[in-house]
Amino acid sequence: MRRLKAIISYDGTNFAGYQVQPGERTVQLELEKVLSIMHKGEPVKVTASGRTDARVHATGQTIHFDTRLMIPCEKYMKALNVQLPRDIRVLSVEEVPDDFHARYSVSGKRYRYIWSCEPIQSPFRRHYTVETNGTKPDIGAMQEAAKSIIGTHDFSCFCAANTSVVDKVRTVTKIELVWHGEELHMTIEGNGFLYNMVRIIAGTLWEVGTGKREAESLAKIIESKDRNKAGKTAPAHGLYLEKVYYEL
Amino acid sequence: MRRLKAIISYDGTNFAGYQVQPGERTVQLELEKVLSIMHKGEPVKVTASGRTDARVHATGQTIHFDTRLMIPCEKYMKALNVQLPRDIRVLSVEEVPDDFHARYSVSGKRYRYIWSCEPIQSPFRRHYTVETNGTKPDIGAMQEAAKSIIGTHDFSCFCAANTSVVDKVRTVTKIELVWHGEELHMTIEGNGFLYNMVRIIAGTLWEVGTGKREAESLAKIIESKDRNKAGKTAPAHGLYLEKVYYEL
Repeated sequence: MRRLKAIISYDGTNFAGYQVQPGERTVQLELEKVLSIMHKGEPVKVTASGRTDARVHATGQTIHFDTRLMIPCEKYMKALNVQLPRDIRVLSVEEVPDDFHARYSVSGKRYRYIWSCEPIQSPFRRHYTVETNGTKPDIGAMQEAAKSIIGTHDFSCFCAANTSVVDKVRTVTKIELVWHGEELHMTIEGNGFLYNMVRIIAGTLWEVGTGKREAESLAKIIESKDRNKAGKTAPAHGLYLEKVYYEL
Repeated sequence: MRRLKAIISYDGTNFAGYQVQPGERTVQLELEKVLSIMHKGEPVKVTASGRTDARVHATGQTIHFDTRLMIPCEKYMKALNVQLPRDIRVLSVEEVPDDFHARYSVSGKRYRYIWSCEPIQSPFRRHYTVETNGTKPDIGAMQEAAKSIIGTHDFSCFCAANTSVVDKVRTVTKIELVWHGEELHMTIEGNGFLYNMVRIIAGTLWEVGTGKREAESLAKIIESKDRNKAGKTAPAHGLYLEKVYYEL
């Protein structure tokens, strides 16, 4: 058996998220369906770096699976792309050691969050950016607030309440806020992210940028470890899993 | 009654085209539905510069309609956008003289056609660009061929066979081919376009760019007035109605 690592991109609009759920169209389901066909009906289990929620996009989700097919990587990628639906694309396939694990070997991730701040959101961007009805935030204030997030903290305040994870200490290494025309892009990197963490950070920074919170309040929010002290969870369709880093 | 002119944008993906057709979701239907609600159930007829086919997009389609509502233009635009589905946006509304007509007053149109020439098309662009599987055409050859199209000609060769239009003489004033990263954009302007004309021109120039036809052959194709001499009709989802020009 060979272990293959693949980087994939998907448009999350028409998926109930990454992970298989009974009766739902998911990214994992589509990948496993195609791999099973390639393996003459044998089930093939695909493991991803982590789940993404319904409507969340990926430009650099990473998966692994084991295969007995001796197809070279480049051809493997093409075979997958021919059979996969058009809202999932495989960007690369490479052979990795048996101890590579798409989830357990992760050393970090980068996400992107996009708001479209033009007065009228382009209909072509409606599934890919979050509309602000022309509101343009103060990104200086957002950048100031972001400084408090950088570093190693217990991020309980930015974690969806219904999570089972015990250790909520994570390290955020970078948060950048950049205008691309009238779209505001936030990129965030860290060694790991709690459930909904990026969307809650995006929602909280947005409230800072629109004057509903002070930039200085962030340190206290983090200290409180209280989800109720942070801002709203920003909508799913503005979020992209952009890159997964591995030690190997 | 006031006559209002509106510039609208729509994502053609989920429409059976612009014009009302029984049992189909069309742009005109959605516009007339919302206007009728605003007029307490009275029907309101919307007239566009022309139809667009299923999956064809618009960034500058232009319409007119008559209304007895005295709402200022800016508020009218907002009221429409609040009620319209997100794949149609009204970009501007202005009051025009009674003799303005969205179709009959047209003096010219600009269309855009987009091919995505990266080896793997982004899943986010699948409805908005035509995939070439990494084929990059010779745009010099396409530009050379385009020169033969510029000017006033009988464009029967670029007109879908099943059309009822008698006079097929049109003037094309400009064709530009420009790379935007790995996407090739063709813009074309003229005083009017026959049914499928832009898509047949795009398909024919593509065949020139990929070495299936000589750039020099274009003059003869036009001269022949024979649809069968020209190239394939390029797919609908690469096409955008970008601007409608009016004399008034």
